[in-house]
Amino acid sequence: MNKYYFKRIAFLFVVAFVFTACQSGSNKQSKGAFGDSDVASKVYVPPGQYDEFYAFFSGGFSGQVSVYGLPSGRLLKVIPVFSVDPEKAYGFNEETKPMLNTSFGFIPWDDSHHPELSQTDGVPDGRWLFINGNNTPRIARIDLKTFETVEILEIPNSSGNHSSPFITENSEYLVAGTRFSVPIPQKDVALKSYKENFKGALSYIKVGKDGEMSIAFQILVPGYDYDLAHSGKGKSHGWTFFTSYNTEESNTLLEIGASQKDKDYIAAVNWKKAEEYLAAGRFKTFPANYAHNTYSDATHSAKSEMLKEVKVLIPEECPGLIYYLPTPKSPHGVDVDPSGEYICGNGKLSSDITVHSFTKMLQAIKDDNFDDEVDGIPIINYEAVHAGSVKSSGLGPLHTEFDGRGNAYTSFFISSEVVKWKLGTWEVLDRVPVYYSIGHLMIPGGDSKKPFGKYLVALNKITKDRYLPTGPELCQAAQLFDISGDKMKLLLDFPTIGEPHYAQAIPAEIIKNNSVKYYKLTDNKHPYHISSEDEAKVTREGDNVHIYISSIRSHFAPDNIEGVKVGDKVYFHLTNLEQDWDVPHGLGVMGAKNSEILVMPGQTETLLWKPQRPGVFPFYCTDFCSALHQEMQGYVRVSPKDSKVPIKWSVGDFEE
Amino acid sequence: MNKYYFKRIAFLFVVAFVFTACQSGSNKQSKGAFGDSDVASKVYVPPGQYDEFYAFFSGGFSGQVSVYGLPSGRLLKVIPVFSVDPEKAYGFNEETKPMLNTSFGFIPWDDSHHPELSQTDGVPDGRWLFINGNNTPRIARIDLKTFETVEILEIPNSSGNHSSPFITENSEYLVAGTRFSVPIPQKDVALKSYKENFKGALSYIKVGKDGEMSIAFQILVPGYDYDLAHSGKGKSHGWTFFTSYNTEESNTLLEIGASQKDKDYIAAVNWKKAEEYLAAGRFKTFPANYAHNTYSDATHSAKSEMLKEVKVLIPEECPGLIYYLPTPKSPHGVDVDPSGEYICGNGKLSSDITVHSFTKMLQAIKDDNFDDEVDGIPIINYEAVHAGSVKSSGLGPLHTEFDGRGNAYTSFFISSEVVKWKLGTWEVLDRVPVYYSIGHLMIPGGDSKKPFGKYLVALNKITKDRYLPTGPELCQAAQLFDISGDKMKLLLDFPTIGEPHYAQAIPAEIIKNNSVKYYKLTDNKHPYHISSEDEAKVTREGDNVHIYISSIRSHFAPDNIEGVKVGDKVYFHLTNLEQDWDVPHGLGVMGAKNSEILVMPGQTETLLWKPQRPGVFPFYCTDFCSALHQEMQGYVRVSPKDSKVPIKWSVGDFEE
Repeated sequence: MNKYYFKRIAFLFVVAFVFTACQSGSNKQSKGAFGDSDVASKVYVPPGQYDEFYAFFSGGFSGQVSVYGLPSGRLLKVIPVFSVDPEKAYGFNEETKPMLNTSFGFIPWDDSHHPELSQTDGVPDGRWLFINGNNTPRIARIDLKTFETVEILEIPNSSGNHSSPFITENSEYLVAGTRFSVPIPQKDVALKSYKENFKGALSYIKVGKDGEMSIAFQILVPGYDYDLAHSGKGKSHGWTFFTSYNTEESNTLLEIGASQKDKDYIAAVNWKKAEEYLAAGRFKTFPANYAHNTYSDATHSAKSEMLKEVKVLIPEECPGLIYYLPTPKSPHGVDVDPSGEYICGNGKLSSDITVHSFTKMLQAIKDDNFDDEVDGIPIINYEAVHAGSVKSSGLGPLHTEFDGRGNAYTSFFISSEVVKWKLGTWEVLDRVPVYYSIGHLMIPGGDSKKPFGKYLVALNKITKDRYLPTGPELCQAAQLFDISGDKMKLLLDFPTIGEPHYAQAIPAEIIKNNSVKYYKLTDNKHPYHISSEDEAKVTREGDNVHIYISSIRSHFAPDNIEGVKVGDKVYFHLTNLEQDWDVPHGLGVMGAKNSEILVMPGQTETLLWKPQRPGVFPFYCTDFCSALHQEMQGYVRVSPKDSKVPIKWSVGDFEE
Repeated sequence: MNKYYFKRIAFLFVVAFVFTACQSGSNKQSKGAFGDSDVASKVYVPPGQYDEFYAFFSGGFSGQVSVYGLPSGRLLKVIPVFSVDPEKAYGFNEETKPMLNTSFGFIPWDDSHHPELSQTDGVPDGRWLFINGNNTPRIARIDLKTFETVEILEIPNSSGNHSSPFITENSEYLVAGTRFSVPIPQKDVALKSYKENFKGALSYIKVGKDGEMSIAFQILVPGYDYDLAHSGKGKSHGWTFFTSYNTEESNTLLEIGASQKDKDYIAAVNWKKAEEYLAAGRFKTFPANYAHNTYSDATHSAKSEMLKEVKVLIPEECPGLIYYLPTPKSPHGVDVDPSGEYICGNGKLSSDITVHSFTKMLQAIKDDNFDDEVDGIPIINYEAVHAGSVKSSGLGPLHTEFDGRGNAYTSFFISSEVVKWKLGTWEVLDRVPVYYSIGHLMIPGGDSKKPFGKYLVALNKITKDRYLPTGPELCQAAQLFDISGDKMKLLLDFPTIGEPHYAQAIPAEIIKNNSVKYYKLTDNKHPYHISSEDEAKVTREGDNVHIYISSIRSHFAPDNIEGVKVGDKVYFHLTNLEQDWDVPHGLGVMGAKNSEILVMPGQTETLLWKPQRPGVFPFYCTDFCSALHQEMQGYVRVSPKDSKVPIKWSVGDFEE
């Protein structure tokens, strides 16, 4: 074991601890500073009234998406995406199990970071919400009519899908850059051969007219860490910008090794040019192994396909496809202003925000104003693209969003603050402390062509003394600011579940009237659905017992079942016959190892139960549905494996 | 299939639908009725200030507990209890997997209903929170110093542990009555033999001085459905009261079959008498098969024991142990007023609340004033115990809590309202509508000897048009009322996660100063913990690879590992070396099937990874921990099964 680096690490420790110490105790500053009824009434949504915005927060290491109302900060729903959810049986019922399939098999968890609303003409349109899976590289699509995850696509040749799924102006593409470079294709190589063997890949995912995703192409790039991205808009439409760090190509102790160079790169990709090269056949086909999972509302069942290859563009063979823009100090977020002109690089080890000009970039390309080239990628001269820098005197800029009125807002992790500054003049207009350690910030529509503005949400990693303590594990949190005036005004602290990594928000008006209230029974195409109690039945096929069962207030049909044997696979296919809003029924069976199921009106879901011992096992409705909910129960008689008890079922007493 | 009952069901359907229809549209009544800044400021907790109460909500079919602050309604934490939680790796890491062990094996889900705070002298004391698992019958204990689930006990001879875990005045016992009667012991019998073969069991769980639970005894009772319970207090200390329904002993279509009799029973159990019978050896020993799981903070690991027998008391052999109190119309909640005198039976198919007198009950027992007897259980004459009835004109009373000022508050599911009434005079003092379909209600300390009062929370099942729509699946919700004056005043609607079945609340002062901030590294007794980076290492034992790994801002040690092979079981034993508040680190490994782990300062957790293919796999910190969090990564080289690459690991470059 090599301990050479330890002394070099020490200075960064000191930095980290000093800032932590500075933050402690600052809570007191805010106590008592508010509480006036003016502020309270700005976030108070009276009972029965609606919030003004839907805000979609990533769950970070929870793998899910949470939906908050703004300005109230109330959690309206958790949408399961990449992780199993016992409450909703997501990943447990037979319908959704395939959604979590990957090339590694079934994976119960991921780390979701960046919710991204679909766009039309550069403005969020409320059709779909996309989000990346960081760990096992994937992108998911949520349908905003049903608030359900309907598609998950795995990204091959990627590891740590962090710079994703940032969308293009008309939802043509989502992007996905590998955070961790790896051998492409994967192979068993020594870690010290990093510089020789490790590569990055930037992926473009085509979005079809119904939202369906497919991998259009990948670009093979040097073995850096690709961190974040944003697509161009307006004048820069057709381009995407990806930050990279670890251009040092270190494979150990990156806190030191990836912090050596003064500048890393923002990669500028011309995807219109990529389309030309694809059309011209100028690509290589790489073998790949990745899953594409889709969930159908109509049949309430998912299917998982394994796909086999991808088209890869090699920069050396595709001139004009990609350029590097030198950007100081391990840039984290890269954000494009509403006009598409300014590309803001947030150098996280810097106190400055570096802004590049798209116009200057085009000119520099035209002028061949390059300093160098790496693997066929020209490195544009820094001065030739640099528009200006914001001298904020903050520390650790991470992300920038825009209000559509010429102002930008940048989060500073280390100095724990939000800084408001002016596009073009780069002057600092305002700054507010946040509690504590802000990562992303979010303005509704704040990364689009026409920000909706009004509020800013700070997404904070550390909460310490901000809320009642809950043992060693504390919530992360959001802080809501009013940004309608010249100065930012703190309105509300609200805790969040999981890690609120990034969020996007949209006016409620755009979505709420399209929301599906229940599924029509007449549209139910589940292979085991029934349309009325008359169709309820129990059938045996070998060891498989299929129970076609219905629920309606306040009974199951059938509710007495005999003839099931130890060792059988018993499938409860529950159809909820209700046809009204907000009348779900659940089904729990004692000792079932697949969670319960929670079935919406008109829907069918399947719970698999493998009875282990003889006896009588009740089942019951798990969702309080009526005054006679407690009576909504049934019994299954389980007989020994060699029993001759025949399949028998009824609603009401058995006929003799 | 017998369709005989269907016509009889029809009338109940009509009832259900009529009430549903009545509720629709009533939302408008509340719109605009509030919004004055007075009300807003009553629930607004300014940034950085603390809520006044901790409120512990059950998650219902989520199986978890959620912690809200009152009056803000902010969700402070979700505590995983009976269901797996990918975010916290609960049920995924090696330390907590045993917590979800049952006699059926590992079960990833349950249905948790009634959080119950430990009590001293009849008042919540903030030491522990207990909660029942309804499906696979269990009780869990959460330690309120750490907000972690530390113990789960399975209840044998039970099915549907609903009337649980209501506690006695000094936390002597928790109770657990079976909701669904089953053959005891279990056996394969015809369902139509219900009346002959099915029994109920009322269980008493001893709580030790450190909170540890053990099954003290069970009482074998007739095959009814046991629904809810409450222990006596003050003058009725030493007794417990359980509601029952389905005294008709129907095994199908209970919505009809269990609604035939005018009165069912509240069972009154004299547990002091039970202790005498146990001491005298007047019990039977039944074989039983149940799990007892404990989690130790000191070692961060759980163990699961399977236990084999229980002591059972038979009423016929134990005179004076148990009596039945006739109570109209399928009583649901049974609630005892702060004085211990009044036992309120909420007959859910009634419009009245029936109140019994404990003093009259003792007199009736003394007088042998019994109408009948069933299985050795005397049925006390109704008039002899009846203290009075509240003629509310509401429909579907479910639960009652108390404010300690002589008033009671009852939830009405069907008429969707809360009714305030006076103990002793039974007069109705106030009523407010709730939106919609309230189940439980909760006043802080409202079922104890000394309610803390001030607020009332309505726990509502249906929310429909109350919040921005989120597709077919909508949240359930709470409504917060100010009850400090004569009239109840609605303050706030807030959505909840899962089903907020019941809740309890306690002043923050009682808990907050005892909350543990981090685990001391010097107390870490995990078998694979390390105390510093110097102890980091990787060892191989056959196919098992143990990685003793540490995390501290901002690197892992080791972060380069070679010599792992396809087919190995790789154990990442991650010790978080931080010793400060709110500095967790996470660990994610691509393709790992066991979720990520999230490790608190001073803690060790173990992630098991079974690499499936050769290549280089990154791991990284999943919890944004410092400005160099994105650099906190490492690589594992995975070689083919027959490879000769030796185990090798480093922090910094490998030594040559």
